Amino acid sequence: LHEAAMEQAAQRISQLTKPPGSLGKLEETAVRMAGITGSLNPDLNKKAVVVMAGDHGVCEEGVSAFPQEVTTQMVQNMLSDGAAVNVFARQAGADVFCVDVGMREELADPRLIARNVRRGTDNIAKGPAMTRREAACAIWTGVETVRELAEKGYRLFATGEMGIGNTTPSSAVLSALTGIPVEANVGRGTGIDDFTLRRKRDVVMEALRVNQPDMTDALGVLSKVGGLEIAGLAGVVLGCAYLRLPVVIDGFISTVAALCATRIAPMSRDFLFASHRSQEKGHAAALESMELTPMLELGMRLGEGTGAVLAFTLLEASIRMMNEMATFESAGISKA
Amino acid sequence: LHEAAMEQAAQRISQLTKPPGSLGKLEETAVRMAGITGSLNPDLNKKAVVVMAGDHGVCEEGVSAFPQEVTTQMVQNMLSDGAAVNVFARQAGADVFCVDVGMREELADPRLIARNVRRGTDNIAKGPAMTRREAACAIWTGVETVRELAEKGYRLFATGEMGIGNTTPSSAVLSALTGIPVEANVGRGTGIDDFTLRRKRDVVMEALRVNQPDMTDALGVLSKVGGLEIAGLAGVVLGCAYLRLPVVIDGFISTVAALCATRIAPMSRDFLFASHRSQEKGHAAALESMELTPMLELGMRLGEGTGAVLAFTLLEASIRMMNEMATFESAGISKA
Repeated sequence: LHEAAMEQAAQRISQLTKPPGSLGKLEETAVRMAGITGSLNPDLNKKAVVVMAGDHGVCEEGVSAFPQEVTTQMVQNMLSDGAAVNVFARQAGADVFCVDVGMREELADPRLIARNVRRGTDNIAKGPAMTRREAACAIWTGVETVRELAEKGYRLFATGEMGIGNTTPSSAVLSALTGIPVEANVGRGTGIDDFTLRRKRDVVMEALRVNQPDMTDALGVLSKVGGLEIAGLAGVVLGCAYLRLPVVIDGFISTVAALCATRIAPMSRDFLFASHRSQEKGHAAALESMELTPMLELGMRLGEGTGAVLAFTLLEASIRMMNEMATFESAGISKA
Repeated sequence: LHEAAMEQAAQRISQLTKPPGSLGKLEETAVRMAGITGSLNPDLNKKAVVVMAGDHGVCEEGVSAFPQEVTTQMVQNMLSDGAAVNVFARQAGADVFCVDVGMREELADPRLIARNVRRGTDNIAKGPAMTRREAACAIWTGVETVRELAEKGYRLFATGEMGIGNTTPSSAVLSALTGIPVEANVGRGTGIDDFTLRRKRDVVMEALRVNQPDMTDALGVLSKVGGLEIAGLAGVVLGCAYLRLPVVIDGFISTVAALCATRIAPMSRDFLFASHRSQEKGHAAALESMELTPMLELGMRLGEGTGAVLAFTLLEASIRMMNEMATFESAGISKA
């Protein structure tokens, strides 16, 4: 991070017509945005939500409320601008980009960024999700997507995903990387009942027993018990960090992906902004594992990038605050 | 609330391409907005932040970090578009209206809505803040302000305030109305030190001892230990409820004012939306006393309406969600 820009930002904020620190997280955000971009008034005009899509062999264990074909159907819905993330992105002035990094079915649509690494993972309850090489390719897909969008002028990113069943590998990855017990971390995803929840817990435990992931090897964890879109999003975070671009992370899956990125390159943490605290059980713990605190508390559990894109306004508010507020001196106001 | 519109809203939301309930608070918000406005797609184009300004005789007890003249200086700053609330309002496409309901100094500025009821309150540590009649006039000022803005086409409101020292009467009002102990409820306001905090606690206790407010008489509580801008904001909430308009409340002072409104007219609770949970100590308890849960968690403690106006985007997102998302049927997506 650009230390000088951060100091300059903190200095400017201290002169604004408000009690010191009274804008809380918006002040921290503004200072870190200055540190990331090197500017007190960065151009955030072009904003991208990168939605990584992938399928999960573990769906055959019956861990999700929705059938697997919904991944493709929902990607189609996103491409047609009908999903929640599209609605919120339109409101925020952001563009949604869907990437097929690991969908089972081929979807011939020119609006889909076709970068399929493999057609869905294998069932993690029976063996590794994918090879180490495939996981690395999926990460690379995320990095490349950011690079290409940055070349087109995008300067603020949000992570999103679509992949029926993807809270199951996300829980496995979180437990594998942090040691958080599986029971504390497996949630209801899109809305499973108690019976399926117990089944899902058993499946995650079985995946960890069968694959024996090494917590110090994030790439190994991703390939053994992860998913292609999770790896892809880890790549989005790494790409943003490499190019010094701010990235807002969404819910449970995105946050687990970001955790993988910070294990691969710890400095990538500096470029992350948490958006919301979701209803999904493991999300709070995943955020805490990176010492991130969210700004929104909406009881959401949809994914897609919906929470992240809602937080764009707050990041922009923090920049506007730094640039548009009067100072004590300019407004002739007595200090405390 | 329009029950039929609420049912229709819930029905429509259940058909949208997302797991049931997965947008959490945004779904509740959309349903309640339909109930308030009677429409699934209400016009929220014109949005107003009403900032009530008043001064507090209790400042002579040394309870605030800022000198009392800052009330007038900050109102001037708001009229000149330099305060934080102006910046966030501009971003949200909302207009800020400052009302002098109880400022000590007269400010001759045509942009100020001049409705002074009296030039600041008396010191609540020594006697009542104002007469019962003055409190009623201040409430009426809030009602009238909403009526006039509604006539100009404003359809969504936020409450804001400016008044050096106003967390002190707000704490007294909250304790008087709810029985929450003073120690649990007095906070640092704009940023007082430990010594001043102890002093402030003593002052609030003294105000309650001297004035003996009756918890079942909200108007009496406001006149004995309240403030003119607090009463004015209670009027804004009552005016919104009377005209069936949604109102977003800001931090501690606004929330205490809303609590007064709900004690005067319990049905006004239906028209309130909480925005953020502030850093001010009593705010969480004030929200809980009305069973309101906030959407933003930004560690703010500025007031002015800053948190409320930041939440406008979230209310608008909830309406857009209801109107712009595809349905399972239109998008051809398999249900759970």
